Amino acid sequence: MNTGPSAAVAGQPPSSVRASARATDDGRDRRGAAKRRAIAQAATAVFLRDGYVAASMDEVAAVAGVSKQTVYKHFGSKEQLFLAVIQEAINGVLDEFFSVLATSFPDSEDLEGDLLRLGRILLTRVLDTELMALRRLVIAEVRRFPQLGRAWYESGPGALVAALSESLRRLAERGELSIGDPLAAASDFNWLVVSRPQNMVIFGVVDAFTTTEIEEFVTSAVTVFLNAYRPGRVASDDDSGDT
Amino acid sequence: MNTGPSAAVAGQPPSSVRASARATDDGRDRRGAAKRRAIAQAATAVFLRDGYVAASMDEVAAVAGVSKQTVYKHFGSKEQLFLAVIQEAINGVLDEFFSVLATSFPDSEDLEGDLLRLGRILLTRVLDTELMALRRLVIAEVRRFPQLGRAWYESGPGALVAALSESLRRLAERGELSIGDPLAAASDFNWLVVSRPQNMVIFGVVDAFTTTEIEEFVTSAVTVFLNAYRPGRVASDDDSGDT
Repeated sequence: MNTGPSAAVAGQPPSSVRASARATDDGRDRRGAAKRRAIAQAATAVFLRDGYVAASMDEVAAVAGVSKQTVYKHFGSKEQLFLAVIQEAINGVLDEFFSVLATSFPDSEDLEGDLLRLGRILLTRVLDTELMALRRLVIAEVRRFPQLGRAWYESGPGALVAALSESLRRLAERGELSIGDPLAAASDFNWLVVSRPQNMVIFGVVDAFTTTEIEEFVTSAVTVFLNAYRPGRVASDDDSGDT
Repeated sequence: MNTGPSAAVAGQPPSSVRASARATDDGRDRRGAAKRRAIAQAATAVFLRDGYVAASMDEVAAVAGVSKQTVYKHFGSKEQLFLAVIQEAINGVLDEFFSVLATSFPDSEDLEGDLLRLGRILLTRVLDTELMALRRLVIAEVRRFPQLGRAWYESGPGALVAALSESLRRLAERGELSIGDPLAAASDFNWLVVSRPQNMVIFGVVDAFTTTEIEEFVTSAVTVFLNAYRPGRVASDDDSGDT
């Protein structure tokens, strides 16, 4: 039976042939996705070792064990490749965060517990060594390649804060939080959790934090956040509606 | 009259000669300080243009219009020169912040107003274009030169938070704030004011903020801070004393 690639494009093949062709396509897709991942992993290593400017597509191809043509076929350009590397790294933070957000909010029955879960995921992922190294690399190149910095911010903290603000807005509508500006409140949550440990690590004051220290940072941030945004507090300027 | 440098070291010169020598020393000190400033300014420009690794002492000397020997006499090494540049830039943030802290705290009669003043100074200075460029440069070099990152953190946010925490501790003792961990509270103030706009600028999402936008960031941060730390709030884990 002809199950080669040419069968699928030959007019109207019988269903068995179409199914075989589909299976072949699926196999090809899987191999393509695996190759794409292998190239992205190789690229991450090369970018982190050589920096953005010095990193070459030749070197990425060599480390991935594919031809340079294959690298270009999958990613188009060095910039596209780096943007894919960034996106992949950031997805490692966001996927789990968004998953908790979708399952626990806004119908949270234990708001403090759910915020602690969110904070733990966020901080643990944000402090990941490879993500931190990529963050340094992006910051180093913002002046020469502003599109890299914008991509990082918008697909990272920007996307996270936008999604969280939607959940906070609904919690505020249900009276569980007192929030005038959900985007600002979501931003406060993010930076209350992340800023201090992230800055200590990015400037190399510490290499990493223990699980206990992570827990202390997150507990402190959630306490401050809830104290600030629980109903019954002195009205903020945002809430008074006179500005 | 002999007012040359040699007069001051000739046994016991009469008081008029000693005074003249002192005036000469003062003049030399002033010229020395001016030259030091000129070298530091030239170095800032060279580091920001060429990066830390590529910047050369020859180039700094050329831009400052002095000999390379003079640069080494004042700063010892490229690392010492860069650390001096960092310190100078950070002093631009801290000097005014510490001045307000010393005059308005802890005997603040208008806590919200004084926190707003502190926040305005902090954020405006932190977003300064040159400081932001130096921050990017330090972050870019942390892996190769960890001492630069540590110096930045410790003389910057570390020093600021330590000083602010002392003021907050005294305000808490007077019952004006409810604070379990003054260092954590000071850190919260710093990052609530700074994080969102600082990240937007460092990743190049915006170039700068208007005075009105700065005011909105600061007002929002101070409101959240006071809501979280004003007395009469639900006890936090830190306050309960059972951990």
